[in-house]
Amino acid sequence: MRPNDPVEHLIQLLAKLPGLGRRSARRAALRMLMAPETRMLPLADALRAAAEAVKPCSRCGNLDASDPCRICTEPDRDQGLICVVEGVGELWALERAHAHHGLYHVLGGTLSPLAGIGPEELSIAPLLERASLPGVREVILALPATVEGASTAHYLADRLRPLGVPVTRLAQGVPMGGALDVLDDGTLAAAFKARR
Amino acid sequence: MRPNDPVEHLIQLLAKLPGLGRRSARRAALRMLMAPETRMLPLADALRAAAEAVKPCSRCGNLDASDPCRICTEPDRDQGLICVVEGVGELWALERAHAHHGLYHVLGGTLSPLAGIGPEELSIAPLLERASLPGVREVILALPATVEGASTAHYLADRLRPLGVPVTRLAQGVPMGGALDVLDDGTLAAAFKARR
Repeated sequence: MRPNDPVEHLIQLLAKLPGLGRRSARRAALRMLMAPETRMLPLADALRAAAEAVKPCSRCGNLDASDPCRICTEPDRDQGLICVVEGVGELWALERAHAHHGLYHVLGGTLSPLAGIGPEELSIAPLLERASLPGVREVILALPATVEGASTAHYLADRLRPLGVPVTRLAQGVPMGGALDVLDDGTLAAAFKARR
Repeated sequence: MRPNDPVEHLIQLLAKLPGLGRRSARRAALRMLMAPETRMLPLADALRAAAEAVKPCSRCGNLDASDPCRICTEPDRDQGLICVVEGVGELWALERAHAHHGLYHVLGGTLSPLAGIGPEELSIAPLLERASLPGVREVILALPATVEGASTAHYLADRLRPLGVPVTRLAQGVPMGGALDVLDDGTLAAAFKARR
């Protein structure tokens, strides 16, 4: 294919999407090229509309078409609970699970000295500010169960303690439907220790 | 998510692409929303450009930004060889394999009486017209090795015979790297019979 060919250019961009390799990008491009009016232009419009409308929420960091985002402005949300997540993907996952009926705070990553990500690179100062507002009853650290996630949670707990607000973390244990004999040792030991 | 939410709308359209389910569509949307200027708008532009520029070639049916397509107009292509394929995906595959240095003819499907696809629904009349032009030395039927592909090839061979142009088909046999003990019986028997 010629380098400046519109089909080849489209396939290259599609192949960069997570979950699509070059092979599926070709299939997707071809499928859309068979019906440009009904499949291609609507997607082009949706991409443009989302790119123009969707911005990070200035309060919590969620990506939404309104600012403050719809979660921050939903009247039946518990304004006293702030759930801290690494990114918007984790926020979406908790929303899908209907796990949390309070507010969120998107950190924008986890602390990683090796990668040069210190407290200044994350949305930590705004979190401390929000957590010190009157009415905040609990900060839930929903960070990944990795070394970086755990050390970020430690760091945040240290910074939140002086504010006097209770800080909790997600429980660790056996995942729903998880067979014990295929679980990794760390999870198994943690679940055993936290038995109740 | 709200039904008229631009993010939700984008995820729904992405999830319709072959190879992307709802889960990967969400990941793709999120990845793009993190960098709308560099990831989202370029894809929107590429989709629009391809939708506007790419049309079926009026000679062979290939999808290309020029008409006649670049394959039909490439000077070093052998104009005496016409390779008949079911669709543009098959044409692309043969081009990637550098298997053919002549021209193509896209049928637009295979005959399927049950699905109501008869000769009139496919690009058969234009093929017969092209095959009767002076200088055409061979028509290669590169149709799928399915019941529909085989019966379409039979039908085309019958229609092409009166024109006096030699008609060939792709060889059937053991695929490259294929282990004999996992091959289906039909392929194995055909490969054995066609031994040379």
